[in-house]
Amino acid sequence: MKLIRFGAPGKEKPGIELDNGKRIDVSAFGVDYTESFFEDNGIVKLEEWLAENKESCPEINKDERLGSPVVRPSKIVCIGLNYAKHAEESGMEVPSEPVLFFKASSAIVGPNDDLIIPKNSQKTDWEVELGVVIGKKASYVSEKEAMDYVAGYVLHNDYSEREFQLERLGQWVKGKSCDTFAPLGPFLATKDEIPNPHNLDLWLKLNDEIKQQSNTSDFVFNVPQVISYVSQFMSLLPGDIISTGTPFGVGMGLNPQRYLKPGDVVELGIEGLGTSKQVAKAYKE
Amino acid sequence: MKLIRFGAPGKEKPGIELDNGKRIDVSAFGVDYTESFFEDNGIVKLEEWLAENKESCPEINKDERLGSPVVRPSKIVCIGLNYAKHAEESGMEVPSEPVLFFKASSAIVGPNDDLIIPKNSQKTDWEVELGVVIGKKASYVSEKEAMDYVAGYVLHNDYSEREFQLERLGQWVKGKSCDTFAPLGPFLATKDEIPNPHNLDLWLKLNDEIKQQSNTSDFVFNVPQVISYVSQFMSLLPGDIISTGTPFGVGMGLNPQRYLKPGDVVELGIEGLGTSKQVAKAYKE
Repeated sequence: MKLIRFGAPGKEKPGIELDNGKRIDVSAFGVDYTESFFEDNGIVKLEEWLAENKESCPEINKDERLGSPVVRPSKIVCIGLNYAKHAEESGMEVPSEPVLFFKASSAIVGPNDDLIIPKNSQKTDWEVELGVVIGKKASYVSEKEAMDYVAGYVLHNDYSEREFQLERLGQWVKGKSCDTFAPLGPFLATKDEIPNPHNLDLWLKLNDEIKQQSNTSDFVFNVPQVISYVSQFMSLLPGDIISTGTPFGVGMGLNPQRYLKPGDVVELGIEGLGTSKQVAKAYKE
Repeated sequence: MKLIRFGAPGKEKPGIELDNGKRIDVSAFGVDYTESFFEDNGIVKLEEWLAENKESCPEINKDERLGSPVVRPSKIVCIGLNYAKHAEESGMEVPSEPVLFFKASSAIVGPNDDLIIPKNSQKTDWEVELGVVIGKKASYVSEKEAMDYVAGYVLHNDYSEREFQLERLGQWVKGKSCDTFAPLGPFLATKDEIPNPHNLDLWLKLNDEIKQQSNTSDFVFNVPQVISYVSQFMSLLPGDIISTGTPFGVGMGLNPQRYLKPGDVVELGIEGLGTSKQVAKAYKE
């Protein structure tokens, strides 16, 4: 099942993208895709409800805006340097255990919303990433059990301001949390749609030119490893997102470096998770 | 006004602590202390409602558990090394601009709940801190305007696992986000209760012995400076908490170092913001 949310920013309603590409409004189910939706076994309940009610759900207009397919979660946990070749281009070693950082959930936007380049930014960069959506509270979970805690997967562009992240003292969060820096979607694919998350092509284009192209088989730490690892340090709540790191090909790694400027068009995709597209705009007061 | 929340974990109701120390249940007001409460000018509306309805509010039993005085916010932003003498004991320089890190909101508990020492922890440490609660969305706010964005203040113990934070690769968030690592309260004091947040005594005792004792006049960066600074990198949402850093006297800075073990009792307080007390317990499956 592919969960979507559609409508104006902050007023999104829940929907479903069917296998034939048709999108339907499932507001009548009565629950948005929140923490309690996942906690209360909402995916299974929605599937059952759809079996009865699908025909009566209104179709969504093709040009309707998509929002993030999940309501703002309690946290976005990101895994740093999780593809060996990206660690190299960043001038860092492949980590011996996962590097974690947070991204503010206030950075979340819809998959095709504009990227707003922050005020005073010179180094806004892209990062295509596979996001894992947690389905139930995970604390001290073993690698063996970890996949039981997955609700599904989502495409994420982990936009990063490299000066804020790396040159402004201390922790990376400063360069990861600007508004619009976390486009999610187009849809959340439930776990059954992605039988193997460790063999997915992913790519990112800047103005139609391929910049990132890799496969999740190149992960340093795979999905069960990162879920288990994160859960040793904090509880993951239903709806929380783990973003699993980006492959080689970010702007910081190019020679010369290439950062985003107004008018740039970024498109990205992951096999089975659709594509998204953001147009870079300057910040306006 | 002093906002409290009371009742069993996850089922808290909103209340008020009156100036005479009496606590009353304000569930009848109809709104808990969430993001939208702050956003919709809830503090003023609640004050108006209380003027009419205070007498009919049920009194809360003295031994009723207190929860966090704010519902889980979108984020907790912490300021690192914001007292010069604490930077020194941590072996770090006084920063030239604020160091930011996040703490998972899933770490929030009530002010007197047990501290659960995480599995595999050897270095769980304490940090008394002044928390600033944001009242309205703040993005690119100037220092001059910053105080307009404050809803109030709250006592926070920013528990920290030093091995997870400093010895486990990368970012501090690993040692800051364990469950129960963010006791908040006893109450949120609205801004009018604390005319000057830059001259408050704060202290922390371990088993009745003073470990931290300082005053917020020692801040490296004051409240308007940190609000303005954070808002250059991300939007602060209503209800978000900025924790302004801890003074000298944490366990890591002692010689020999002293970390928490089961049975230890931690008490802390800030002038005008009450006191809290946590008993350390071992993690149990």
